[in-house]
Amino acid sequence: MKKNVILTDTGSVKKEVMKIVHNINLTDVHWIPSHPIAGTEESGPRAGQAGMFENRWCIISPPKNSAEQPVKKLKALWEAIGSKVKIMTPEEHDEILSLTSHLPHAIAYNIVRTVMGVEDKLKQEIIQYSAGGLRDFTRIAASNPLMWRDILLDNSENVSKGINSFIEKLNELKKAINDKNEDRLYQIFNSTKEVRKEIIKAGQDTSMPDFGRKKD
Amino acid sequence: MKKNVILTDTGSVKKEVMKIVHNINLTDVHWIPSHPIAGTEESGPRAGQAGMFENRWCIISPPKNSAEQPVKKLKALWEAIGSKVKIMTPEEHDEILSLTSHLPHAIAYNIVRTVMGVEDKLKQEIIQYSAGGLRDFTRIAASNPLMWRDILLDNSENVSKGINSFIEKLNELKKAINDKNEDRLYQIFNSTKEVRKEIIKAGQDTSMPDFGRKKD
Repeated sequence: MKKNVILTDTGSVKKEVMKIVHNINLTDVHWIPSHPIAGTEESGPRAGQAGMFENRWCIISPPKNSAEQPVKKLKALWEAIGSKVKIMTPEEHDEILSLTSHLPHAIAYNIVRTVMGVEDKLKQEIIQYSAGGLRDFTRIAASNPLMWRDILLDNSENVSKGINSFIEKLNELKKAINDKNEDRLYQIFNSTKEVRKEIIKAGQDTSMPDFGRKKD
Repeated sequence: MKKNVILTDTGSVKKEVMKIVHNINLTDVHWIPSHPIAGTEESGPRAGQAGMFENRWCIISPPKNSAEQPVKKLKALWEAIGSKVKIMTPEEHDEILSLTSHLPHAIAYNIVRTVMGVEDKLKQEIIQYSAGGLRDFTRIAASNPLMWRDILLDNSENVSKGINSFIEKLNELKKAINDKNEDRLYQIFNSTKEVRKEIIKAGQDTSMPDFGRKKD
């Protein structure tokens, strides 16, 4: 690599890639990881679309003691293609992304697998009536299995912690259902209503900006 | 009610409403439950849209010994507004819908509640980076909490059974993550890939037909 070149990546977990690059021991190279929170369940060059990064966040995680100028340059690159840039530590990145992305993917895979685990004779009916809710999970459960295997392994501690909290909350919900506890159930279901509004307000509610949007 | 009138409903669980109507002991009324699998997370008259039932399934569950003619009439009504009609027993309906709709809703509420259960300082960041996966769950977790409380209570046995299978599968997934079992993880994530394609093929992949579609 040329001297003073800026090196970045676009991966979903930062801890592991930083370890790898650290071990290569690059000299005179500005290594600054980035992670654009953008795209669809599809991968590969054919999944690229104009406007894909428009109004989407990109997280930059410069290693400690990074020079200021290359970080500014990388930030300007992401901003030039429409992204909003946030700088945070790799640890913060991996914790937040485990909640907003990695755990939700694990859960989406799990609900589709649970529901499709029924007898074969029901499968076609489940596809037919998926518009009742299941459909919303199948988009992200159709993501690249190899990529998601690696993401969950690279961020396994955070994800495993998230799964434990999830199961704890789900057991609470099951108890409220079994106990026919109307008040508790209402409370649980009412607590999540506002999140959607805030996501829409933050402009993060569609997979793609309108002009380049596919029917998904 | 006039003699020979056809009475239907559009509720999401059949067992309970059939019990209620049975107890009223209507005479000379053709009572035939229906359930259109259509609509968005919004409810009330303002959430109605032209084309809402277009290419969507509607399930009709005639009680045993229903006369043939009124079932045909009701079927024709749903078909006239664009629905495809399927006839099944209330028990089949409640089992299938627990898988395609009720369990997925319970899980969507639960993932949003788990993720938003973090310290306040992280909440704004979670909203910002929700495009990484969480966003897909928030749409259905923004549904009417009163309605969903009642649906889960009315179909509690099926839903509770579904939650148990879900937790069993999730523990398997967690074990594979903790054991760093690459092959098992790949297998799990790969098993759900085809479902999305089949849903798209069946034309059930959008909330709304294009012409009346809102940005969601």
